[in-house]
Amino acid sequence: MEKNYVVGVDVGGQTTKIGVVNTKGEILAQTVIRSDNSKEFAPYADELAAAIKQVITTADVEGQVRGVGVGAPNGNYYKGTIEFAPNLAWAKGVVPFAEELHKRLGDIPVTLTNDANAAAMGEMAYGVARGMKNFIMITLGTGVGSGIIINGEMVYGHDGFAGELGHTCAVRGGRRCGCGREGCLEAYCSAIGAAKTAVEWLEMTDEPSLLRGMDHITSKDIYDAAKQGDALAIRVFEYTGRLLGRSLSDFVAFSAPEAIVLFGGLARSREFLEKPINDGLNDNVLNLWRNKVKILFSALKESDAAILGASALAW
Amino acid sequence: MEKNYVVGVDVGGQTTKIGVVNTKGEILAQTVIRSDNSKEFAPYADELAAAIKQVITTADVEGQVRGVGVGAPNGNYYKGTIEFAPNLAWAKGVVPFAEELHKRLGDIPVTLTNDANAAAMGEMAYGVARGMKNFIMITLGTGVGSGIIINGEMVYGHDGFAGELGHTCAVRGGRRCGCGREGCLEAYCSAIGAAKTAVEWLEMTDEPSLLRGMDHITSKDIYDAAKQGDALAIRVFEYTGRLLGRSLSDFVAFSAPEAIVLFGGLARSREFLEKPINDGLNDNVLNLWRNKVKILFSALKESDAAILGASALAW
Repeated sequence: MEKNYVVGVDVGGQTTKIGVVNTKGEILAQTVIRSDNSKEFAPYADELAAAIKQVITTADVEGQVRGVGVGAPNGNYYKGTIEFAPNLAWAKGVVPFAEELHKRLGDIPVTLTNDANAAAMGEMAYGVARGMKNFIMITLGTGVGSGIIINGEMVYGHDGFAGELGHTCAVRGGRRCGCGREGCLEAYCSAIGAAKTAVEWLEMTDEPSLLRGMDHITSKDIYDAAKQGDALAIRVFEYTGRLLGRSLSDFVAFSAPEAIVLFGGLARSREFLEKPINDGLNDNVLNLWRNKVKILFSALKESDAAILGASALAW
Repeated sequence: MEKNYVVGVDVGGQTTKIGVVNTKGEILAQTVIRSDNSKEFAPYADELAAAIKQVITTADVEGQVRGVGVGAPNGNYYKGTIEFAPNLAWAKGVVPFAEELHKRLGDIPVTLTNDANAAAMGEMAYGVARGMKNFIMITLGTGVGSGIIINGEMVYGHDGFAGELGHTCAVRGGRRCGCGREGCLEAYCSAIGAAKTAVEWLEMTDEPSLLRGMDHITSKDIYDAAKQGDALAIRVFEYTGRLLGRSLSDFVAFSAPEAIVLFGGLARSREFLEKPINDGLNDNVLNLWRNKVKILFSALKESDAAILGASALAW
């Protein structure tokens, strides 16, 4: 029987999304399970395998699934492992994810990579990077992830962990990052980083702002405030965007990509970020690339993108 | 007839070196012409083609040459051009180097890339990177060049200009670089950059130093002084090495290489640079790579390395 379907699995801190995808990138059936029901991996793996089988049955494609692609934080493509993922209770060490899932699924191969790489695969297969051979995917979510495509292929590096651009230095001696180091791009240009900037600025001045007095500021709050013309909120996006653009200018010097594709919660504030990102990039990049590298925003439906990205791995 | 020989051509600002190389990486015959006799490309190309034919005759391998590989500043692999090379009088615009040389050579194919990429090819074929699939070559000469190997292949990027790591930002708002921007790695960690550091420090203080009063300090002068225990000279290497190592930590986050290979005039000061480079790298790199990425110094004979690197392109 021809195997014209794949399953995409997106492992997140709270939920794991599972979907059956056809060759056109249509999701035929999907489901969600909790990622955080257990601190042990085995019960989670049992539940995930059951959910995958169920969704294959729902889509009525038994025996026609070519493979399962998994996108997960700290996922290692070479080893099929998830390693030391701070947001996954059952992955504080090295978890042989692909191997264990494969055991539970019988003869369906399982391929795994980190979530940002999966996003890059999704953009290349179904999104704004279709047909591109050289681009960099940057995911602006809770953290900043990245997936690098060179000559049409994912860059995994010597050990499978290539593409940690969220942990390149954006500000020397800057804000402490979750990784323990200082000034990482992630500490400034993630959704949490932007919120931290807002909080710092609110503390430093008496400037009136819709954000003042809020208990737990999110990037969505900053967006809403900016939409209402809040000057401080708008400046937070300008600062965040310029800083990101400046870092992008160094990434361009590395792999000379055709485009940089942005995705994730913070990227939804495109109307406030797009100009400062482009300005930050073009003011800092080497002359030969000035105004030549495209900044693209993912057009995939956010709820589907993670499943599509992971599924693209399995083709 | 089997074609078991290649010709390597290294185009420098003053001289162009040409050598016939066999499959073992041995140079069978070589010659040198001036690069700067003419401001026009055509007479230079004529002379170069004649020199290539002559050296093939000297090596007695007529009809057995598989190709000519050229390493040149601002060389573009995709287009075979040299573009806006400040140190080549006949390359102030876009010069169709490979095409014009090929015309003059008859049926021998000509492949061209930039000099740092050629150096990387040479290390992979004949040097310390033999057998490696993922490494970064950094050339520390008058400028700082780079060649990036991923999955055993040279990274050229979308436009053929990938790997300009000398023009990533090492010091925000720092020293002016030849490219017109500020704080580039090249402005600090090239031979000229190290000399500038020495001059700045001599001007800033009255500290006694063997370098004081010298007219035109070179990196060789700093090395000689350091060998004699000159504290300022030693500190120049420590500063230069740490700065380079810190930049390398961001490059590692990009492509997760097995090793970084250093080559060029400044790299000859290994005994003073090696420790600070490793310290700068390991103090700044993301935990997962700490003490895992090797810093290697090229072991190729400097006079041969450029020809070997260029020749490796032609296989």
